[in-house]
Amino acid sequence: MRRLPRIDEFTPDAEGWGYFLCVGKELRPTRNGQILLMSLQDASGQIGAKLADDIERFNNEFEIGEFVRIEARSVWFQDQPQFLVTHIRRVNPPQDRLQGFREEDCVLSAPRSIDEMWRELQALVERVRDPHLRVLLNRLIGDHELQLREWPAAQTIHHAYRGGLLEHKLKMADVAATIARAYEANEDLLIAGVLLHDIGKLQELHYEPGGATYTRDGNLIGHIGLGLILVRETINGISGFPDDLRSQLEHLIVSHHGTREHGSPVEPRTVEAFILAMVDELDTRIHQVRRAINEDVGSDEFTAWHKRLGRVLYKGSR
Amino acid sequence: MRRLPRIDEFTPDAEGWGYFLCVGKELRPTRNGQILLMSLQDASGQIGAKLADDIERFNNEFEIGEFVRIEARSVWFQDQPQFLVTHIRRVNPPQDRLQGFREEDCVLSAPRSIDEMWRELQALVERVRDPHLRVLLNRLIGDHELQLREWPAAQTIHHAYRGGLLEHKLKMADVAATIARAYEANEDLLIAGVLLHDIGKLQELHYEPGGATYTRDGNLIGHIGLGLILVRETINGISGFPDDLRSQLEHLIVSHHGTREHGSPVEPRTVEAFILAMVDELDTRIHQVRRAINEDVGSDEFTAWHKRLGRVLYKGSR
Amino acid sequence: MRRLPRIDEFTPDAEGWGYFLCVGKELRPTRNGQILLMSLQDASGQIGAKLADDIERFNNEFEIGEFVRIEARSVWFQDQPQFLVTHIRRVNPPQDRLQGFREEDCVLSAPRSIDEMWRELQALVERVRDPHLRVLLNRLIGDHELQLREWPAAQTIHHAYRGGLLEHKLKMADVAATIARAYEANEDLLIAGVLLHDIGKLQELHYEPGGATYTRDGNLIGHIGLGLILVRETINGISGFPDDLRSQLEHLIVSHHGTREHGSPVEPRTVEAFILAMVDELDTRIHQVRRAINEDVGSDEFTAWHKRLGRVLYKGSR
Amino acid sequence: MRRLPRIDEFTPDAEGWGYFLCVGKELRPTRNGQILLMSLQDASGQIGAKLADDIERFNNEFEIGEFVRIEARSVWFQDQPQFLVTHIRRVNPPQDRLQGFREEDCVLSAPRSIDEMWRELQALVERVRDPHLRVLLNRLIGDHELQLREWPAAQTIHHAYRGGLLEHKLKMADVAATIARAYEANEDLLIAGVLLHDIGKLQELHYEPGGATYTRDGNLIGHIGLGLILVRETINGISGFPDDLRSQLEHLIVSHHGTREHGSPVEPRTVEAFILAMVDELDTRIHQVRRAINEDVGSDEFTAWHKRLGRVLYKGSR
Amino acid sequence: MRRLPRIDEFTPDAEGWGYFLCVGKELRPTRNGQILLMSLQDASGQIGAKLADDIERFNNEFEIGEFVRIEARSVWFQDQPQFLVTHIRRVNPPQDRLQGFREEDCVLSAPRSIDEMWRELQALVERVRDPHLRVLLNRLIGDHELQLREWPAAQTIHHAYRGGLLEHKLKMADVAATIARAYEANEDLLIAGVLLHDIGKLQELHYEPGGATYTRDGNLIGHIGLGLILVRETINGISGFPDDLRSQLEHLIVSHHGTREHGSPVEPRTVEAFILAMVDELDTRIHQVRRAINEDVGSDEFTAWHKRLGRVLYKGSR
Amino acid sequence: MRRLPRIDEFTPDAEGWGYFLCVGKELRPTRNGQILLMSLQDASGQIGAKLADDIERFNNEFEIGEFVRIEARSVWFQDQPQFLVTHIRRVNPPQDRLQGFREEDCVLSAPRSIDEMWRELQALVERVRDPHLRVLLNRLIGDHELQLREWPAAQTIHHAYRGGLLEHKLKMADVAATIARAYEANEDLLIAGVLLHDIGKLQELHYEPGGATYTRDGNLIGHIGLGLILVRETINGISGFPDDLRSQLEHLIVSHHGTREHGSPVEPRTVEAFILAMVDELDTRIHQVRRAINEDVGSDEFTAWHKRLGRVLYKGSR
Repeated sequence: MRRLPRIDEFTPDAEGWGYFLCVGKELRPTRNGQILLMSLQDASGQIGAKLADDIERFNNEFEIGEFVRIEARSVWFQDQPQFLVTHIRRVNPPQDRLQGFREEDCVLSAPRSIDEMWRELQALVERVRDPHLRVLLNRLIGDHELQLREWPAAQTIHHAYRGGLLEHKLKMADVAATIARAYEANEDLLIAGVLLHDIGKLQELHYEPGGATYTRDGNLIGHIGLGLILVRETINGISGFPDDLRSQLEHLIVSHHGTREHGSPVEPRTVEAFILAMVDELDTRIHQVRRAINEDVGSDEFTAWHKRLGRVLYKGSR
Repeated sequence: MRRLPRIDEFTPDAEGWGYFLCVGKELRPTRNGQILLMSLQDASGQIGAKLADDIERFNNEFEIGEFVRIEARSVWFQDQPQFLVTHIRRVNPPQDRLQGFREEDCVLSAPRSIDEMWRELQALVERVRDPHLRVLLNRLIGDHELQLREWPAAQTIHHAYRGGLLEHKLKMADVAATIARAYEANEDLLIAGVLLHDIGKLQELHYEPGGATYTRDGNLIGHIGLGLILVRETINGISGFPDDLRSQLEHLIVSHHGTREHGSPVEPRTVEAFILAMVDELDTRIHQVRRAINEDVGSDEFTAWHKRLGRVLYKGSR
Repeated sequence: MRRLPRIDEFTPDAEGWGYFLCVGKELRPTRNGQILLMSLQDASGQIGAKLADDIERFNNEFEIGEFVRIEARSVWFQDQPQFLVTHIRRVNPPQDRLQGFREEDCVLSAPRSIDEMWRELQALVERVRDPHLRVLLNRLIGDHELQLREWPAAQTIHHAYRGGLLEHKLKMADVAATIARAYEANEDLLIAGVLLHDIGKLQELHYEPGGATYTRDGNLIGHIGLGLILVRETINGISGFPDDLRSQLEHLIVSHHGTREHGSPVEPRTVEAFILAMVDELDTRIHQVRRAINEDVGSDEFTAWHKRLGRVLYKGSR
Repeated sequence: MRRLPRIDEFTPDAEGWGYFLCVGKELRPTRNGQILLMSLQDASGQIGAKLADDIERFNNEFEIGEFVRIEARSVWFQDQPQFLVTHIRRVNPPQDRLQGFREEDCVLSAPRSIDEMWRELQALVERVRDPHLRVLLNRLIGDHELQLREWPAAQTIHHAYRGGLLEHKLKMADVAATIARAYEANEDLLIAGVLLHDIGKLQELHYEPGGATYTRDGNLIGHIGLGLILVRETINGISGFPDDLRSQLEHLIVSHHGTREHGSPVEPRTVEAFILAMVDELDTRIHQVRRAINEDVGSDEFTAWHKRLGRVLYKGSR
Repeated sequence: MRRLPRIDEFTPDAEGWGYFLCVGKELRPTRNGQILLMSLQDASGQIGAKLADDIERFNNEFEIGEFVRIEARSVWFQDQPQFLVTHIRRVNPPQDRLQGFREEDCVLSAPRSIDEMWRELQALVERVRDPHLRVLLNRLIGDHELQLREWPAAQTIHHAYRGGLLEHKLKMADVAATIARAYEANEDLLIAGVLLHDIGKLQELHYEPGGATYTRDGNLIGHIGLGLILVRETINGISGFPDDLRSQLEHLIVSHHGTREHGSPVEPRTVEAFILAMVDELDTRIHQVRRAINEDVGSDEFTAWHKRLGRVLYKGSR
Repeated sequence: MRRLPRIDEFTPDAEGWGYFLCVGKELRPTRNGQILLMSLQDASGQIGAKLADDIERFNNEFEIGEFVRIEARSVWFQDQPQFLVTHIRRVNPPQDRLQGFREEDCVLSAPRSIDEMWRELQALVERVRDPHLRVLLNRLIGDHELQLREWPAAQTIHHAYRGGLLEHKLKMADVAATIARAYEANEDLLIAGVLLHDIGKLQELHYEPGGATYTRDGNLIGHIGLGLILVRETINGISGFPDDLRSQLEHLIVSHHGTREHGSPVEPRTVEAFILAMVDELDTRIHQVRRAINEDVGSDEFTAWHKRLGRVLYKGSR
């Protein structure tokens, strides 16, 4: 039996086996008995799956949140790709690793390699000329490496997958650097703002493969306040950090949503803060638009109505 | 010559001398020369003053922001009280104290005695049963006693005078305690929220007799962020402070403006937070209304149009 | 067989009989036949019920809106309490009263006793010192005693049960009295405003045990206009009622929603009107929040998303 | 000496005498003494006037709000028409009537004759077929004839002159009748709504030649509430008035501002209410636009920026 | 077998045959097999239909968007009219025309005859006195006769049926003419604006019997821009068309939504533009209200909650 | 006598002569006569000027909008730079050119050389690979070269000087190109959108050295509609221009304000449209912020309150 293809390389009528993360499971009654519906992820996407026979036996073999090994056939069902599963069991890591199982292959992830993105982040920090900002960045990034590599950028709206936060920061940094030069803004400060503006998300969210949830502090204080505290505490440990630089950097954190309506208690008052808020909104928005276009399954030139954006989107005549 | 009466006890045609704070000064040309217009304060209010003779000599005798000794006559001019000044000079403290000069008598102040309000604040803290909150309050209030006694509650909108912050807190505490009992809210937590919700104002504003200005951190970070950091740093120094209590108290700080539109990055999510935001708004609003009614000089049943509130206010047929 | 416990004292696996109000009934098809789903109320709450056998016979024994006697067993079903009913019939009052049936025990009601709340209301009126307001209150409250004892405060949003209007008024009066004293407002006028501000609801809604509906005048004129007319007509019958007092009291009625956006044609222009609008909003909001917290069945520290409030709410770590 | 022309027939360099209402007066200092500036009205408009000689004598001859007799010369001054006054005194009615003085000629008035408009109003009422509505209209219009003939439609925004309310009603009735027929609405009901929707203005405003002010009830209750009470009290005196007709008519009053934001506590819920709100807005808006165009003194194709409307308006290439 | 009655003349228990347009079809599983649900239209309305026997055979006999011949019985089902279909097949035009089949009888249409409305439109154009506008109207209307006769006024909100655009224009013209005379507006210009303001809809929508969809240009440019281009191109071909008249007419097109929030890039700046925007809104709104009242199936005086209008509507006690 | 320095190189106490554009002139009375106040421009800025002697003679020597030659001394007056003028006359071009007069030196201009910016624009167009877009750009830019070189980007808000439109386009193109590459957008299309999105401004505004005014079409149709027509007319003349490309480009024009509230009748529905709207807003906003910071004359770290932006701005401790 062959290995099943990646979810984003789906073709119907493939048969084989593969490793996935189970992120949903539901027993549903049918006219003649019941059926087991599942949602499975790999690094490249998410897919529905259905198991019809021997349900009671297989249903006890795994839980939501666990990695599983399945045997299945791929089909199109009601215009959606689907797996018809015949065997399923939870992964036994020591043994399955020998067959090529790797956790990171089974968790919805940013399209680029995390290691590559991490090196790019480190290079970015090295290019910061201001020594205080560079020390601060190294310290905060060093302290949170594990999280910064893995965390999504948001629970659902955009970049909601493993490595999404890192991907979002790097794309923003790319755009922000150009704009800083175009408008003679303080590039070091702006890059620091890009890298730290939502550092509070590391405390706002709790992330596990399969999804993110809000923490108590996340719900009650929010990532702007949490990030502000974290940055202040770190700066307090760096001797000689200029007070006006600290104030401007903290301003970038509190103002990065752009307006009070969007949750910034103080609105941009420096050139860098205006740029940061726009670059953040741009990256978020374009990511949403791209995803809506890519995920739309219709054959029209336009997507279905996008509720959050309040419009249809042009896909072109591909 | 007699002592001039307090500004809020103004009667026309009094002659005498008195001590005031000069908060405004302007040379204005007239048809036959020029005139020196001044704004003077004492603890009870603010008044316009005019000096017509010997202008060049007197104009050099004092600056804006200084305490002055004047000799004057009180008159009504265009429906407003005014002093016609004949002599003016800056106060010479060592010598003038012998004549009864006291700084606090010359600075626009809350109607109640600051010492009395301070004792009330201390009693409030003593009544807090939760030991961690009581320690926190004692520490923060002890550390900032000088400021907390003197600071205004805002630059212009409400309680914008010496002791205004303290007056605002105490009135809010009075109302909040009743409401806490009516709705079985956590009274200790709510009182702590009342006393600490705008502790960040101490860093947001720079106050000197005569007026308050925004600091750099005040403009760039704002009192919600500054207060949050201050409370967190203090709690970090109190061993055993329960984490959920910390989170709820910080929530009171970030949510106390009630909505994102009004500058709270997170909106109320606990009963105490809903109460705090409303009590804060109530005290602010009633103070504004009372002041507008008291300061309106017209003889109608209604005040003139109040621009910020967008309406006229009923004064009654007094 | 034993008496079933009150709905708010539900425990699973109780068997017995009881009296309830039927507020919903629906035949639903199943794989092997059909099932009868019901919603039942008693004074303490509402619960789902299910009848599986002998459906055709029992379905004819009662209608929506009738009091019923059931025999049932209590179970947990999909995280919700439920009755599995084996017998059901409409109540026969003369006979069932002998077994302890009382209408008021079977209608969703305020937690406090209506008689006790009514005495509290009367005491409140007696404490009003202004003779004209006291006469007015006695007349209006006397004229509408039956309704004022029973009516809910709203159709769905808050205090939507028997005695809810009375409960809402008393809680508001408690808070308003404190605030009146704190801000030297006219306490008599404010209490009159609290007791009369939504007197128009008695014409806006039509209430019967089980729920309230809007009347024609309720839909076309609304409780602000209806209350205004009712108060004016009553004042017209009280000789010597001061005209400015009438005007201020009517202002409390028209302005009590606080803003035009919320349906007040005139916004608060007296100190008492500002207080009344805020106390009304406070009581409404806290009631909503408390109910959302109490009714949330999840095991998290936070409730599920509350659509009307647009947020999750903190329940604490109970 | 000849009679001065009407204000709307102004030509420069006319000399003569005339009767006017003085609606403004101010002594203003100049380089060589002082000058008396006045605002004068006749039925057709308002104009500035200036008196330079013998000021002290003439200034005592009249007050704001009085009718005056002037002798003057007309001039253009800074692109505005103006009277240079040489004599002015208050009117002595018995004697000046002999010279042709009539109050109504000196008060800013609707362009059409009030008597003619009044007859049109009576004819409108006679055409109402529903007997209850016709009785109601006759009673309310009969009771308030004097006011309804004279009152302006608003204090400042539109139709702010003698007879303006009547002019506004008639124009609305004209348009509303067509629309009622086009959409098969209840024409009688709609005409009654047109004639009564702002009957409360008679209690909201206090009008005297020269201007209108808000009454206590106007400020505290507003014309929607006042009109509602007045209509209900009158209907109570008409036996057999159908209850659903009363309810629909009162709905027209409370909903005629169209939205809650504009001050209607209930929004339109009948076809007639939608039409009434739009016809009211249309007449108000077109009147504003026409006046802005007519009063603009520039020579451009467009008016100056109109602050309330937030735009410039096209005047055309006249 | 008899002919089935028109949909708007539905009575239960009629049996017969008829021609309809099929606008929806869905196979739905049931407990014992499956059922075929359909939506059918004729000129007067839309109705649900159900086929239970011989499903596989009949399901292949027709598709969505085709005209069909059915044999059926009419019944009430869950408070809704419905056809129980026993035979169904697609129309064979040559043959069925002999039995009386006509396409226009089977497409949801305006209540008035299209030929009659078209003659009314032509008469309207003939009454335009301005020669340039008349030429322009004749040219544009002549060029688009087929579409203008058939097109709906919108995809869903109002007049969403065959001939709806024409019906909308004529009703607007009727009302606009009266208003133009009442306010001395330029009637020719206003009528031209009524007839051309949404001419861009002909390119914005693609209409086929059964429904309208947005075109690429409709989604990306919108009918305001498309109409503007079309009018400009046509005017370019009319020699001597006055430039200020062109500018005013184009202004009517771009401003006819009344505000920027509603999609007009420029807001009304001429009297005619204010009138056009209001007449358009009036016709749209009244059409929506009438339809909601007519289609409401409940027995109350009020309709169910109307989501788009955010209110219930009064139907009266019919 | 020496040449006066450029306005942006102002130093006090310089004496000399120079050429300027007069953009304002006003006779103002003083205590002892009158004074002539002027506003003068050169390419680098604008400055106030005052003439005290021989006013009647000099006042006739020039008008607003004319180039003038002055002799003056530079001074600081009330914290503002100023010229004290002793001689002034209008420029006599043939003769003054011999002394070095050039119009372009006397008109407020973009900081960069127009010739240089123009070459950059041409290079941009050359880099467009899509042949249809390149032809379109060359045609439109060629047809409007004179205007595109000179026009400001707006009347007052941003880039309101000679060459401002060109400067705005180039800066936007620089940023947009980076973003296009970062998000794999269609760079050719985006650059075409940048260069053409406000081509309608050439018809919306009428520009003359000294300022811009709105044309009739500008006020009645607006630059979005005008640009749309212009682009469509030009595309109609290019054979084979792909229809979907035309539609997408026109979409960029109508949607470039980003939201309907800001005047776009259709909101962005392509990735390029989202980017264009944000880049336009970014350049506009940063230009506003930079100008506010540069023009603020205070010595604080923060500017005065910026009314349009609703905040103070951080200048830093320069």
